[in-house]
Amino acid sequence: MKIRNLLFLPLLALLFVAVGCDSGKPYKMVDGRIVLKTPERPKGQEDMLLFAAEPIDVVRVGFIGLGDRGAAAPKRWAQIENTDIVAICDLKQSRIDLVQGYLKEAGRHPAVEYTGSEDAWKAICERDDIDIVYISTPWMTHVEMAVYAMEHGKHVAVEMPAAMTIDELWQLVDTSERTRRHCMMTENCVYDYYEMTILNMAQQGLFGEILHATGGYVHCLDRLLRKPDPRWRVERMRIFRGDPYPTHGLGPVCQLLNIHRGDRLDFLVSVDTKAVVGRELYADATGERPEEFKNGDQTSTFIRTVNGKVINLFHNVVTPRPYHRGYSLVGTNGYVEKYPAENMMIGSHVEEGVNPNTLGAHKFMPDAERNALLEKYRHPILIETEEMAKKVGGHGGMDYILDYRLVYCLRNGLPLDMDVYDLAEWSCVVALSGISLENGSVPVAVPDFTRGAWQKVKGYKHHYKE
Amino acid sequence: MKIRNLLFLPLLALLFVAVGCDSGKPYKMVDGRIVLKTPERPKGQEDMLLFAAEPIDVVRVGFIGLGDRGAAAPKRWAQIENTDIVAICDLKQSRIDLVQGYLKEAGRHPAVEYTGSEDAWKAICERDDIDIVYISTPWMTHVEMAVYAMEHGKHVAVEMPAAMTIDELWQLVDTSERTRRHCMMTENCVYDYYEMTILNMAQQGLFGEILHATGGYVHCLDRLLRKPDPRWRVERMRIFRGDPYPTHGLGPVCQLLNIHRGDRLDFLVSVDTKAVVGRELYADATGERPEEFKNGDQTSTFIRTVNGKVINLFHNVVTPRPYHRGYSLVGTNGYVEKYPAENMMIGSHVEEGVNPNTLGAHKFMPDAERNALLEKYRHPILIETEEMAKKVGGHGGMDYILDYRLVYCLRNGLPLDMDVYDLAEWSCVVALSGISLENGSVPVAVPDFTRGAWQKVKGYKHHYKE
Repeated sequence: MKIRNLLFLPLLALLFVAVGCDSGKPYKMVDGRIVLKTPERPKGQEDMLLFAAEPIDVVRVGFIGLGDRGAAAPKRWAQIENTDIVAICDLKQSRIDLVQGYLKEAGRHPAVEYTGSEDAWKAICERDDIDIVYISTPWMTHVEMAVYAMEHGKHVAVEMPAAMTIDELWQLVDTSERTRRHCMMTENCVYDYYEMTILNMAQQGLFGEILHATGGYVHCLDRLLRKPDPRWRVERMRIFRGDPYPTHGLGPVCQLLNIHRGDRLDFLVSVDTKAVVGRELYADATGERPEEFKNGDQTSTFIRTVNGKVINLFHNVVTPRPYHRGYSLVGTNGYVEKYPAENMMIGSHVEEGVNPNTLGAHKFMPDAERNALLEKYRHPILIETEEMAKKVGGHGGMDYILDYRLVYCLRNGLPLDMDVYDLAEWSCVVALSGISLENGSVPVAVPDFTRGAWQKVKGYKHHYKE
Repeated sequence: MKIRNLLFLPLLALLFVAVGCDSGKPYKMVDGRIVLKTPERPKGQEDMLLFAAEPIDVVRVGFIGLGDRGAAAPKRWAQIENTDIVAICDLKQSRIDLVQGYLKEAGRHPAVEYTGSEDAWKAICERDDIDIVYISTPWMTHVEMAVYAMEHGKHVAVEMPAAMTIDELWQLVDTSERTRRHCMMTENCVYDYYEMTILNMAQQGLFGEILHATGGYVHCLDRLLRKPDPRWRVERMRIFRGDPYPTHGLGPVCQLLNIHRGDRLDFLVSVDTKAVVGRELYADATGERPEEFKNGDQTSTFIRTVNGKVINLFHNVVTPRPYHRGYSLVGTNGYVEKYPAENMMIGSHVEEGVNPNTLGAHKFMPDAERNALLEKYRHPILIETEEMAKKVGGHGGMDYILDYRLVYCLRNGLPLDMDVYDLAEWSCVVALSGISLENGSVPVAVPDFTRGAWQKVKGYKHHYKE
């Protein structure tokens, strides 16, 4: 071996350090941060910002997956005018029968049924009398179905999270951009009464500039997870370290922060606790105690935006605690929280004569004052849908509002309330929190799924017909 | 230049990457984490775990710094039996006069006065009739005074945070270990009624294993910070990026998690928002608008322990929000929070006949049940000090309890409730959060200030005479 060949040994070692310890991984370290490769946008392909499809007079829909939440979707759609529920698909005939019952009850015609095989859903995507495919299947199956539906000219509405990996998210983004079909995630919490009202207040500047926000998913599912069937969710917990379900917390907060409408998620970093209760639930559900069980009982993530805002996300579905989705915001002129109670503060709120430095000096505004504000700033969409939502139900009305708005925008040829970049940004925390955790809680850059177009639109907004 | 010399160039480059981008910095990167050098314990020097000094019959004290909190300390001590307030020191005669008034009121003899120069405090440390020096001066001056006092054979009680840098913390640890003098931080929030009661419940296992906890310091000091005098706190905000004041949130949580009594802080990672309100307050206070203003309006930190627990810390003293110190805990069998209200849950708490998977199924325990538990598990120290604390006051009694316990342990020759490692662990978040932020929110290893002895004691406890 010649001496000059030896020169390459330390250079190789240097390269090894610079690109991460596993050279097989598709990312590099830049200034202590993991950066994933952003695939180039194919030539001629355009972004989907403010994309609006041709108006559809009667929205024809096919539903794939009729489990708990899956069956509730056609039930709600049956209450929405100018829709046609063309086809339904599930592996179980009993779920199909249930939904046919809902349709009959609502005076709708029976839907065409698809069942009997693992890929029965494909035939729905292949029909030529459907505008949108609505996917409510287990997490890991979303991408294949959504891509296939778009490839066959259908818009897509898909349950959260939309995908498990960043590659899959790029697949959804690229397919949506190339086929010019909507690909929307059915993240319902952005339509909750409080989130919509606070968004309206924030957009009108009541809290000043929003600097920090929390979001999360604390929902004690111990009794559900320890059941032997379905088993896919505990299996996922066994093999996946990271936040498996971030979008309920993240979606409403990203709308507040105008993500990819003037700001964008820059990086995240995650930590988790060890798994104690999760392991027990897994043992109850399966009778097995595998040595490796990856999902921590509580997983927490910080996300920082390019404009210097911070989001604090958390996930815990196993230890006992009341339901909690976070949704607090720290503004330069106010503070809002949703749990355990709807508390609000605008300005410093110190009573006359009180020393402002004493611990109890700054108080939430009185209930009457807060309620008056919540009434005054009720979101226009809430007012519009209130009556109907109360009648139809579904998570206190927010599921209905989601479907109503989806149909409204499709019928009027408007941009949807959530686009494929929202889907990607909110879902990517699944994979990225996993990458952060598997690498010792290092920061991970959030890909810019708009590929440079995040400042094209200024501020989040809902669209209405003229 | 010979070829063999060239070999060193890439090797040097490799070294450069491996030790961080600024080779002047005293740390290296190990698996994506910044690791600071731990100085070796000098030969013959021993740790201070469970250290107990010789009993002191009457505790003779000297106070340095008589500002807001500083003047309150001798006022409280004057109410504690078997103490002698020997000397007091401040730059302002008016503060000394105020304290002499307190002493007279309590029937104590006047204290010897030290004032008139920047180093008048040294003479207190040099006296031979003082057992402990109590330091309540601005943050940046603590270390010099504490070290000088220990070098002169005095125990030390020092306000939080104890130091601004990790080197200074090692100085305090080493001086305490070498001189065999206590060096305690006067972190008062560990003595708050709720924190002590919950600690007692946790130690008796009511919440299962504690996996996650929050702590923080949200205290809207806008009116205080925009005053022209004193200016040191806003000056510190201008030059320091990081959590400047973490110990109120961290102290009680570390006691819950038995830090350096079977577990230890492994690493932390911090993020912050940009500075908006802080900049305005600085401009109000000083009339200046410097281009660089480092302290973010809200700073957040995750800390993970070696045993897989997570602490979520936050700091915000500028935007409007009610006072909040966090103090929530997630256990395998329960959940507790302190703000905005004292809420608690033990076990799943789902009422008979309610579907446990519905959103509102898991509820906090009813007020009466919680209050009965808080009464039943009232901490023995609270019971002991209750009457006196109510009479003397001072932050709802917790300041008094701190001083009372300090005197009690000194008089009985017992280990103090907080040792020099607590001081270092709780204070080190100041410097380490800064290092994390200045390096793009990378994880930073928390030094083991016990240098290997963190498993010697099992579980946090208060000591009592036989």
